[in-house]
Amino acid sequence: MQIVKTVEELKNIRKNLNGKIGFVPTMGALHDGHISLIKNARDNNDIVIVSIFVNPTQFLKGEDLDKYPRKEEADIKICQMCKVDYLFMPNIETMYEDDEVLIKAPQNSYVLEGFTRPGHFDGVLQVVLKLFNLTQPTNAYFGKKDAQQLTLIQQMVKNLFLPINIVPCDIVRENSGLALSSRNVYLTPEQKEEALKISKSIYMAGNLIAKGERDSKIIKDKIYEVLNGLDVEYVKVVDRNFNEIEIIEQSNTIILVVVRFGSIRLLDNIWM
Amino acid sequence: MQIVKTVEELKNIRKNLNGKIGFVPTMGALHDGHISLIKNARDNNDIVIVSIFVNPTQFLKGEDLDKYPRKEEADIKICQMCKVDYLFMPNIETMYEDDEVLIKAPQNSYVLEGFTRPGHFDGVLQVVLKLFNLTQPTNAYFGKKDAQQLTLIQQMVKNLFLPINIVPCDIVRENSGLALSSRNVYLTPEQKEEALKISKSIYMAGNLIAKGERDSKIIKDKIYEVLNGLDVEYVKVVDRNFNEIEIIEQSNTIILVVVRFGSIRLLDNIWM
Repeated sequence: MQIVKTVEELKNIRKNLNGKIGFVPTMGALHDGHISLIKNARDNNDIVIVSIFVNPTQFLKGEDLDKYPRKEEADIKICQMCKVDYLFMPNIETMYEDDEVLIKAPQNSYVLEGFTRPGHFDGVLQVVLKLFNLTQPTNAYFGKKDAQQLTLIQQMVKNLFLPINIVPCDIVRENSGLALSSRNVYLTPEQKEEALKISKSIYMAGNLIAKGERDSKIIKDKIYEVLNGLDVEYVKVVDRNFNEIEIIEQSNTIILVVVRFGSIRLLDNIWM
Repeated sequence: MQIVKTVEELKNIRKNLNGKIGFVPTMGALHDGHISLIKNARDNNDIVIVSIFVNPTQFLKGEDLDKYPRKEEADIKICQMCKVDYLFMPNIETMYEDDEVLIKAPQNSYVLEGFTRPGHFDGVLQVVLKLFNLTQPTNAYFGKKDAQQLTLIQQMVKNLFLPINIVPCDIVRENSGLALSSRNVYLTPEQKEEALKISKSIYMAGNLIAKGERDSKIIKDKIYEVLNGLDVEYVKVVDRNFNEIEIIEQSNTIILVVVRFGSIRLLDNIWM
């Protein structure tokens, strides 16, 4: 595995690569969720490129950029074990200049996560587009957990005619059901126990829909019942464009739950 | 020469192209300026793609989108004679959707042309990025006449790490000296005669600098003298980032002149 630190270095490497290229962009602190993305990339491509970059432009003022978990050594080891070919770990200076051409997420991004974190998705799309142009992958892998991020990246690929296949990957969970997240390390044991209600509510919703329930209001009410006692930020039933819907349609519905433990936000969802 | 009408068609063609690809994006109404770009592309690449698309997102409300000259048949003939391989002539529906991921030109773009036409360069960069992603050229050709457009496209390529070489091409002029422009057709014979002062002022500035003059204020005053009687919108001496400069530096200075004849704006410039 070759560790690549600068944009120029990666450009030169990419020029000489042939075959199918799988790309997994991350912010590091790799957990089993990331590992499943990397394995998926390894199984289906000739060359695998992983990036680790805690992207400042997707953090808003006052957010946890400085506190975001960084585990460089462990991350490198994990990528080696996953047989990654190139690990791109740039610093901010090689990635950004002062006054740049920017990406602006569409109007429909200013709901839910984009409402809570206005500008967040502009930064996500900006760094993902930069990384796409650098790595020019055949396939790029993203977790369904960040559902709105994934659908916006799919939209960017479509709008900008990028010749890249986006591969959505299932949420990976602890045995307890808790969806994996780099932010889980901040939870106290008691909070972690309480947080199990989140995946429980998601499973319950999936079961109700499997049994034929199509009324999103009923689904949301049942989810709120399971989440009783938690600081729920939102429970939403949306289509792939993140418009709220009243009637659940198979293959075009996402049910989203966000719960807060102090400043920690935990996301979970299920895709129909 | 193959005429390509849809994004999907072009994507499929591009997948199977190899070798050096030269790309010339235009808004049609091709004149000798465009032809020189196409010839440059033809001489230095295996495959030449030209696009003709009057891009609505770079026109502001009330601007001349509907009146912009369209000469489809003549343009097709010209491209055939220039041995273009693929002529991409999309309609608006294949290029744009309703609520899209957008490109935002940097802060430094909101001067001069970007001040007069706020948002214009956002639209330019958006369509150029789409066309770049579709054609994935080795080399892309742009005239120096639209100086601010050219430098912003160079900046976009740099910021977004696009693996594309931008080739700036010299301004092509009528024998009289008038810089070629699709908008010249709107001039009356009298206005065309008067417009010769523009290129005269540009030549004069070039000569003064060749003789050692470095004071941009003196250059500007002399240009205004030559332009006497015309409706001058601006005369500026800027560096490659479009910051105004007092002392002219070789290889980092552009002198810009914009003159109005009613609603017609004529641009000219010289690069040091």
